[in-house]
Amino acid sequence: MKLKIDELEDLARGAAFLGTGGGGNPYLGRLMLERVMKEGFEVEIIGVDEVPDDALVIPTAGMGAPTVTVEKLLVPEEYLLALQRLEDFLGRKAFATMPIEAGGTNSIVPLIVGAMRGIPVVDADGMGRAFPELQMVTFSVYGIKAAPMSLADVHGNSVILEAEDNATAEWLARGNCIRMGGHASVGIYPMSGAEVKKCSIPRTLTIAREIGRTIREARAARTDVVEALCQYLRNNDTYGDARVIFEGKIADLRRETTRGFAIGQARIEGSGAFSGDLEVTFQNEHLIARAGGRVVAMVPDLICILDLETSEPITTESLRYGQRVTVLGVGAPPIMRTPEALGVFGPKCFGLDDTYVPFDSCPTP
Amino acid sequence: MKLKIDELEDLARGAAFLGTGGGGNPYLGRLMLERVMKEGFEVEIIGVDEVPDDALVIPTAGMGAPTVTVEKLLVPEEYLLALQRLEDFLGRKAFATMPIEAGGTNSIVPLIVGAMRGIPVVDADGMGRAFPELQMVTFSVYGIKAAPMSLADVHGNSVILEAEDNATAEWLARGNCIRMGGHASVGIYPMSGAEVKKCSIPRTLTIAREIGRTIREARAARTDVVEALCQYLRNNDTYGDARVIFEGKIADLRRETTRGFAIGQARIEGSGAFSGDLEVTFQNEHLIARAGGRVVAMVPDLICILDLETSEPITTESLRYGQRVTVLGVGAPPIMRTPEALGVFGPKCFGLDDTYVPFDSCPTP
Repeated sequence: MKLKIDELEDLARGAAFLGTGGGGNPYLGRLMLERVMKEGFEVEIIGVDEVPDDALVIPTAGMGAPTVTVEKLLVPEEYLLALQRLEDFLGRKAFATMPIEAGGTNSIVPLIVGAMRGIPVVDADGMGRAFPELQMVTFSVYGIKAAPMSLADVHGNSVILEAEDNATAEWLARGNCIRMGGHASVGIYPMSGAEVKKCSIPRTLTIAREIGRTIREARAARTDVVEALCQYLRNNDTYGDARVIFEGKIADLRRETTRGFAIGQARIEGSGAFSGDLEVTFQNEHLIARAGGRVVAMVPDLICILDLETSEPITTESLRYGQRVTVLGVGAPPIMRTPEALGVFGPKCFGLDDTYVPFDSCPTP
Repeated sequence: MKLKIDELEDLARGAAFLGTGGGGNPYLGRLMLERVMKEGFEVEIIGVDEVPDDALVIPTAGMGAPTVTVEKLLVPEEYLLALQRLEDFLGRKAFATMPIEAGGTNSIVPLIVGAMRGIPVVDADGMGRAFPELQMVTFSVYGIKAAPMSLADVHGNSVILEAEDNATAEWLARGNCIRMGGHASVGIYPMSGAEVKKCSIPRTLTIAREIGRTIREARAARTDVVEALCQYLRNNDTYGDARVIFEGKIADLRRETTRGFAIGQARIEGSGAFSGDLEVTFQNEHLIARAGGRVVAMVPDLICILDLETSEPITTESLRYGQRVTVLGVGAPPIMRTPEALGVFGPKCFGLDDTYVPFDSCPTP
C-alpha cells in the first residue's frame, strides 16, 4: 500500500493519540515526511504477513526528551544515517524498517527512512503506544536484543552499541543521546521477519490513520468526537476498553528536562461532570492518573490527553497551564499485559509503588 | 626488544612520574601486566623506525577518573576487547599497538594488549606525559582523527564512535565512559606507520623505564634521588629543564569526581628551603602550580609530585592530607609547545586564564 500525502495528517494525529503524551510531536513528524514525499520519495507500507521469515527488518526511531525535540530542527537525513550505520555494521541491507512505538514522530520516522532508502515499512510496532525507554517494547519481552544498535545525530556523528542486555543498551544509548544534544536517531532491534511476526503489535500504522480520520470526520460532522473515538477503539480488536476518565483545566504543571527525559506532573481541575482533581504523572509519556488518591489508569494502559474543543492530542511537551482538556483511558493490547510484559514496562519499571490494575477494572472518578 | 618481568616495576614507576598525576595508578597497571606475563604472554617493544609506513597501528588505553579506576577491578581482557572491536569495525588487523599517553596504567595497557594479541608495541606515545582528554595528543595537533574509536567495559559492552572532530569524539566517549561506570578501555587514533613517525613522541616507554631505574638505583645507593632524576631528565634530549619547584606538606586537599574526571586542588605548605604555599590545580593530571600567586609551572609542562622520603610518584587519586612531598617541574618536549599544540592542550584548553610561560622561564619560589 502506498501512503498518500493527504493521509499524513490523519496518521500523525492518530499516532500522537496512541503516543499517550510521548512518541514525538505530530506536527514535526508530518512536516519532515511531507518534505520527503514532495521530493518524490514514495512510502510503501506492508502487512506483517508480507515480510519473509528470513528477511532482515531494522526498526528506526528518534529518541530523547520531547521538550528538547520540539526545539531542535529535525532532519530526515539523520534518521536515514542511523539505518545505514547499522546496516554497514551488520554487513547486510534491511529488507524493511518499522516503528518501535506509536507516536507523532516515531510512527513517521520509519516512513521517512523507508521512503528515502526505497524499502517498505512494516505496519506494526513494539508497543501500540509510546514508552520512554528503549527496552520497553514487546521485542524485549519476547527475547529480541536491542543491540547491536546505532545512534546518529544531525552533525553526522554516530555510535554503534553492543550491550549485554536491553536495559544496558538503553543506559548507554541514553548517555549518548544526552551528549548528542538530547535527541538522537536510532536503528535498533534488528530482527528477522519471523521475529516481527512473533512479537510485534500489528496494524498500528493503520489504526493510527483510522484514529486520525475518526477525529477529523467527527469534527467535520459536528458530532461528539470523543464518543466517536471511544466507539472506534472499542470496536477495534487490538485495544481494550476506551472511555473518558476526566475533563477539566490544567491548574498546575511541573515539568523538567532531566536525565534525558521530560519528567513531571500535571494537575487538572475537574469541570462538567467531573469534580475534584486528576493528577497525571509523566516520563515523556503519561504513566499514571490519580483522582482523589485513587488510580484511574496506569501503564501499560494508555492515558491520552486531548484538547477539550478540538480533540487534538496534546503531547507532554505541549501541556500548558490553563489548557482545557479531556482525558481518555484506553486498555493496552493483551500482549502488553502479560506478567512478562509487566516486568518490562509495568508500573514498577517506572518506580511506581502501585500494583497494576487493568484499565477495565479501574474506577472512573 | 622483549620486556622482562623484572623491568616492569621500573617502567610503571617511571611512567607514573611522566603521568604528572594522571595516566593511571602504576601498581594496578603493573599487577595486570604481571598476571599476563606469568601466563606466558610476551611483550615485544619496537622502535618507531621499525613500523612499516603502511602498517596499521591502533593505540589502546584506559580512560576515566583515576579516583574511580583505583576502586574498580581492572581486567586485561577489557583492553583487548577494545582493540578487537575496532579491528572488527575497520575490517583490518592491527600491526601494532602503542600508548596514547605516558602513565602508570596507560603506558602498561598497550603492553597487555600487545602481549595478549601477539603484536608488538611501539615505543612512543602522543604526549610524553598524561592529559585528561582524548583530543589532547600530538596526534590531534597533526591532523590524525581519534575516531573511529572503540570503548569497552569489563562486562563486554562496547561502543564504536564516529565523530566529526576529536573534541566531539572526547565528548561522546566521556559520556559512554561515565555510563560504563567511570572507566572504559579504548582503541583510538587508528593510524599508519608513516603517521606514527610524523606525530608521536618517540622512546617514551624506554624513558619511563630509565626514570624508574634511576629512582630505584639512586635509592639503593642512598644518593639524592631527586637530583639523580633531574640530571637524567636534563641529559635526555626529549624533555626540557627539570628542577625541584617546591617541597612541603599537603595542608589542604579538595578533590571531587565530577564530569568523569578527578578535579581539585592541593595546597602544600613549604618546608626545608621553601616557605609559603604552593597550590597545585588538577584535572586527573596536575595542570598548574602557583606560589604566592605566581605561576611556577603549567601545562603542557610536567608537574610531578613525589613522596619526600621515597621519591615514589604520587598520582592525583593518591594525594592525602599530611603527605610530605617534593614537587618537580619538567619542560615538555618541543613538539608539545608549538602554537598549534598549545591550541589543543595549552592552559586555555583547561579554562585557565594564564598565558603559557615555558617552564624554563618560570620563577622558582
